[in-house]
Amino acid sequence: MPHIDLPPDIPGIRSGFAYRPDTARPLVELAEILLRGESTLSRGERELIAASVSSGNGCVYCTTTHGHYANLQLDGGRPEVTSVNADPPSVPVSRKMRALLAVAEKVRQGGPNVTESDIAAARREGASDRELHDTVLIAAAFCMYNRYVDGLATWTPDDPAVYQAIGEKLMAGGYLGILETLPS
Amino acid sequence: MPHIDLPPDIPGIRSGFAYRPDTARPLVELAEILLRGESTLSRGERELIAASVSSGNGCVYCTTTHGHYANLQLDGGRPEVTSVNADPPSVPVSRKMRALLAVAEKVRQGGPNVTESDIAAARREGASDRELHDTVLIAAAFCMYNRYVDGLATWTPDDPAVYQAIGEKLMAGGYLGILETLPS
Repeated sequence: MPHIDLPPDIPGIRSGFAYRPDTARPLVELAEILLRGESTLSRGERELIAASVSSGNGCVYCTTTHGHYANLQLDGGRPEVTSVNADPPSVPVSRKMRALLAVAEKVRQGGPNVTESDIAAARREGASDRELHDTVLIAAAFCMYNRYVDGLATWTPDDPAVYQAIGEKLMAGGYLGILETLPS
Repeated sequence: MPHIDLPPDIPGIRSGFAYRPDTARPLVELAEILLRGESTLSRGERELIAASVSSGNGCVYCTTTHGHYANLQLDGGRPEVTSVNADPPSVPVSRKMRALLAVAEKVRQGGPNVTESDIAAARREGASDRELHDTVLIAAAFCMYNRYVDGLATWTPDDPAVYQAIGEKLMAGGYLGILETLPS
């Protein structure tokens, strides 16, 4: 039961978007640029950062959604994204991605937790300044999205078909496609 | 010393904005809508939520900046914004604002931490659905901004004159004025 009177039958963050479409626009545009815009990290790798941070924050809706988006876009099949933080991780990611996921986890715990040593470890695996910047901002952004979803106690569907449908829409229209579904 | 090669001599989040202006745009637009757009909460009250969350996250740049913005816009003088979480708080805020600040603190700790009882307490003081929504989203957004600032180890100036100058610019041009200072 959501904490406020959100539009019914709309899952997760989308109910917040429908409740206040003017704040939805920059939230959606940020996701589109960060997760689908030009980058040397693949879309699947960026969704993996999003899913991993969401998992750490205990946000079931975002973990399921972005884990599914990662599965749809990662090369090499459908890893168990939610266990990426296990050691060894069950997800077949590069050494660079493992180091970036470690940076993302530090960001999730709190910005000041990121150390020179975390950054140096990612650089040794070939991470660029831009990749480090984007990893920090993706992790930070999901600390926002996760809290928006759970701070309002939005609806988290149990039915895998809901996430399947959301995934198909994302592949077709990207994040910006969400804006077309909102009240004007 | 920032973790990546950010433009020099630009404080805090503005160095991240200058580094990647395309992600700066939605980040700035979100702040403008949430903190300065139409609302039954005053601009000073909303900046107080931002400063309080930033203080809890240990983000000195954001606490100082938004504490200053709150001081500039709150009725009744210049409270010691950074001690708003003290009990009793040194800031002369309404009972409704105290309850909303408590909700914001729960959001900061993690979305699932917000309870029905926290929401009910704010409602008893007159908080509306829209005020609760905006409090949750402002708190969530500052969990992002704070982590962007400290996750990159951006420059936090010691000189109060820097914050004074930033405050004057905000009063004159709002958050959107920041975009005019960025490389195109």
